[in-house]
Amino acid sequence: MYRTHNNGELRIKDVDLQVKLCGWVQRSRDLGGMTFIDLRDRFGITQLTFNETVNSTLCQDARLINREWVIEIDGVVKERSSKNLKMQTGEIEIEVGSLKVLNKSKTPPFTIEDETDGGEELRMKYRFLDLRRKPLQKNMILRSKMGMEVRNFFQEHNFLEIETPYLIKSTPEGARDFIVPSRMNKQQFYALPQSPQTFKQLLMVSGYDRYFQIVKCFRDEDLRSDRQPEFTQIDCEMAFVDQQQVIDTFEGLVKHLFKNLLQIDFKMPFPVITYDNAIEKYGSDKPDLRFDMKLNYLDLLAKGSGFKVFDEAEAVVGINVPNCADYSRKKIDELTSWVKRPQIGAKGLAYVKYNTDGSFKSSIDKFYNTETLKKWASKCNSNPGDLILILSGDKLKVQKQMNELRLLMGERLGLRNPNDFKPVWVIDFPLLEKDEQTNEYHAMHHPFTSPKDEDQNLLTSNPSKVRANAYDLAINGVEVGGGSIRIHDRQIQEKMFQILGFTKDEAELQFGFLMKAFEYGAPPHGGIAFGFDRLCTLFGGKENIREFIAFPKNNQGKDVMIDAPSKIDLSQLNELGINLPKIED
Amino acid sequence: MYRTHNNGELRIKDVDLQVKLCGWVQRSRDLGGMTFIDLRDRFGITQLTFNETVNSTLCQDARLINREWVIEIDGVVKERSSKNLKMQTGEIEIEVGSLKVLNKSKTPPFTIEDETDGGEELRMKYRFLDLRRKPLQKNMILRSKMGMEVRNFFQEHNFLEIETPYLIKSTPEGARDFIVPSRMNKQQFYALPQSPQTFKQLLMVSGYDRYFQIVKCFRDEDLRSDRQPEFTQIDCEMAFVDQQQVIDTFEGLVKHLFKNLLQIDFKMPFPVITYDNAIEKYGSDKPDLRFDMKLNYLDLLAKGSGFKVFDEAEAVVGINVPNCADYSRKKIDELTSWVKRPQIGAKGLAYVKYNTDGSFKSSIDKFYNTETLKKWASKCNSNPGDLILILSGDKLKVQKQMNELRLLMGERLGLRNPNDFKPVWVIDFPLLEKDEQTNEYHAMHHPFTSPKDEDQNLLTSNPSKVRANAYDLAINGVEVGGGSIRIHDRQIQEKMFQILGFTKDEAELQFGFLMKAFEYGAPPHGGIAFGFDRLCTLFGGKENIREFIAFPKNNQGKDVMIDAPSKIDLSQLNELGINLPKIED
Repeated sequence: MYRTHNNGELRIKDVDLQVKLCGWVQRSRDLGGMTFIDLRDRFGITQLTFNETVNSTLCQDARLINREWVIEIDGVVKERSSKNLKMQTGEIEIEVGSLKVLNKSKTPPFTIEDETDGGEELRMKYRFLDLRRKPLQKNMILRSKMGMEVRNFFQEHNFLEIETPYLIKSTPEGARDFIVPSRMNKQQFYALPQSPQTFKQLLMVSGYDRYFQIVKCFRDEDLRSDRQPEFTQIDCEMAFVDQQQVIDTFEGLVKHLFKNLLQIDFKMPFPVITYDNAIEKYGSDKPDLRFDMKLNYLDLLAKGSGFKVFDEAEAVVGINVPNCADYSRKKIDELTSWVKRPQIGAKGLAYVKYNTDGSFKSSIDKFYNTETLKKWASKCNSNPGDLILILSGDKLKVQKQMNELRLLMGERLGLRNPNDFKPVWVIDFPLLEKDEQTNEYHAMHHPFTSPKDEDQNLLTSNPSKVRANAYDLAINGVEVGGGSIRIHDRQIQEKMFQILGFTKDEAELQFGFLMKAFEYGAPPHGGIAFGFDRLCTLFGGKENIREFIAFPKNNQGKDVMIDAPSKIDLSQLNELGINLPKIED
Repeated sequence: MYRTHNNGELRIKDVDLQVKLCGWVQRSRDLGGMTFIDLRDRFGITQLTFNETVNSTLCQDARLINREWVIEIDGVVKERSSKNLKMQTGEIEIEVGSLKVLNKSKTPPFTIEDETDGGEELRMKYRFLDLRRKPLQKNMILRSKMGMEVRNFFQEHNFLEIETPYLIKSTPEGARDFIVPSRMNKQQFYALPQSPQTFKQLLMVSGYDRYFQIVKCFRDEDLRSDRQPEFTQIDCEMAFVDQQQVIDTFEGLVKHLFKNLLQIDFKMPFPVITYDNAIEKYGSDKPDLRFDMKLNYLDLLAKGSGFKVFDEAEAVVGINVPNCADYSRKKIDELTSWVKRPQIGAKGLAYVKYNTDGSFKSSIDKFYNTETLKKWASKCNSNPGDLILILSGDKLKVQKQMNELRLLMGERLGLRNPNDFKPVWVIDFPLLEKDEQTNEYHAMHHPFTSPKDEDQNLLTSNPSKVRANAYDLAINGVEVGGGSIRIHDRQIQEKMFQILGFTKDEAELQFGFLMKAFEYGAPPHGGIAFGFDRLCTLFGGKENIREFIAFPKNNQGKDVMIDAPSKIDLSQLNELGINLPKIED
């Protein structure tokens, strides 16, 4: 036996107990005749003492031990003379009687402390060391707990966890599919699922009402900091439900998580906003409701005064930034450059300062008198001391740009506290998006989302106007979940594929199994999927999902620790029946 | 709202309640003026009644409804005149007031009943219908419950669930790896994990003592009825533990599952048997302990009597089959053919009948007198009325053959009750297996298994004799779990790779990350993995794991419902940078 206790459990009541401990050396100090070692494991830290006068050989051995060595000790629990009440074990220490080195450690390439001196690339390469740091450990523990709490909730609510397959069929919108060659079936390929969507729908057809799964999904696309080629989803589906019941059920899940993981008790239903309203008020379908600063449409007040930029704009939109009327020229210029960056794409930025003395100063004083600017201020709910920032142009573009600017200003004003949580359901999404370049329709969520009954007649006449029975949950500007009531009727599903540009044969080849299933008694059904990585990140008060994944990929989709992906033996490719084209080195 | 209740919850106390129900039509019957419909969902069945005299239109509508249609009804709960106390809802029925067809169903290609008339291929193609059948539903619910109970146990015991990656690196023993071409990194490949082995070891190095995960694993090999290309594993690892602690901990898990899922309370520790002993006594490293019928070595008694077959055999082995002395010639002949099939490979079968009158009759009477046969019977613990079956030849081969024969006879005598559970730990496995053809050593478990301390000196001198710190849990002749104490020392790991025929470069290229991790304070660690599919199958009292997987692959690794694997677009292959060689159609 290596140990009688872990490093987080000994207390003052254990004084005089003979114990055996194991762990990593966090740090060691020599203080005049005494050597102290902090021994660490995931349960805590226990202080070890070695006394020169009592046992000088042992004390000398202890001095040879370096950080991150793994040791095993025998000793007696003693009360500390100077207690550290911040530590769970801070009232005691171990007077060590014998010491054994279980494994040495080279000096780590960065310090294993809360704040480390290692850059991200180095830490990714030595992920097994980075994972020893407390902040990452906290994240992994939060993630493990969240998984358990998700399951506790579903168990209480009579859901079944059912595993769906990972080796499935590639679908041609599947440019983003990872594919897997089959050795037993040469020249044929599986695909890894982008989501278990069709399988959970089949499970509803099979009568497995109330399904969930915490499941890996895969998407082969260019990566951003909040995307990974493999990610985890809380996937859910119910039968015989309408949109409100789905929202109520999974709002229950999210409240359960807040309560049990963060001790935050949401007493009221989460607010609900329509997609149109969210775009209109916040310029975003995942509005951050931690702060107000809504979009105000100044078109009527701004047009016709001879300022060409506004006169020719489809929309003139302002936000009120509280208490910033004293922004310097330099700060305004910097904001102007910021909105003109290609990622934002605005042409320029106008401002109106509503000074504390009631006067106005704007970048467009030439065209608008105080009377007019007062009206603008009123429209924007501005008070003396506030700053109004204005963008103009194509309405949809301005809304998007304004969303970015709003988030930036919220951030700068400290209005986006990561430990303040403001959830909102966004409903009534459009069913389809039109690609203006190709004139083709794409499903805004996916092709299985049902149109609203009352909009069904628009499917042929005006597809863009059809609203879907689709809903997203956004928290603090992050889309944490989304779902819909699905189509369960073969005819409507066929119609949908047709609108999306599938030929009858293509639809049959790719989704024939699902449409066939609809012919054998498919119940009405709907569900939702939550991004588990994002949810953990949000609950942890962070933004980078990599900090909540034990072994993440980097921005190039690479695991630099194990060196994957990598080249493989030609013989292995031959056995799979695939070739690689020659490329120049 | 589609329903006020599900079909399993209404009781006699609900009489007179106005309710709304949904579900599938299980069956419908017309009985003189009354129509009865059994309405089904996963929660149960509720009987609906339609009265011709009360509402003849509604009754006519009801008569048009066929099996598996999905309907929604409004009605009033009534007490049944003839109760069915076998059903939870059997005391009530619903007098239907209105009826709505939510979805029609074609006639299913097989009956949705406990015993169906559909063949396996047809049922696989229509898996979404097969899954509606009660026996499969029971299996899926058992699996969901088992997953929850596994997690409940681990939560109670302070384990963390940590997800390891699915897109990892191919290793050259990886002929059995599924590989995944990377689009972002052309001509490079990920592999799907055969198990999270190296990652869970890294997690121990990272200090995540007490890890578990219920995780999909992948193996591209020829399939048998108890194998699937993707399968689920309960993967576990602990730090600072010896073999006994690992066994104790996970025996606790298995007992927890038996108690909470099957109400079977194992009070005593599971028996433990060494690998050598298991082979000696049962001819198998996963012995079925539900019945005795051990292997008896008759060599000393059988040799030297002039029967050339036995004289020249390395081993002569008999099992005692109770109460079968009256086996007919025909039955013996049939057994003889059975052991001579190539799958078993015996040269022949000898028998000794110990008749109830105390006399002996054997196939080898010519060579052995009653006196000798009596000694054989004594060696085999035979009683009058028993039958001794004897195989001879190369010892290892005979042991294997005898294991098969023993299982067959146990089956025929009804000694293998699927609801009787006999677990056994098999320990002290050999570290290495020698391939007699190539003279190469293979790891019996995997290359990360540690040799026993006391056998370390044999690593160079006599590798075959080295025993491993490895253990399997077998229940009823099924290997449900296996694990080991791992190597945590770089030098020993290097030595191991060397014995397995890796060059230094190969070992570094493939497992350098793990060996590097061992240099930074790797703790002693060990763990186990359970086959989740097999465990579910065993607990369900069945043998075919496909019945416990929602969407399994067939013996050719195909999902015939969705048609995967299948051909994919050339454009998709081009984008991935791979070619297919031309083959003749």
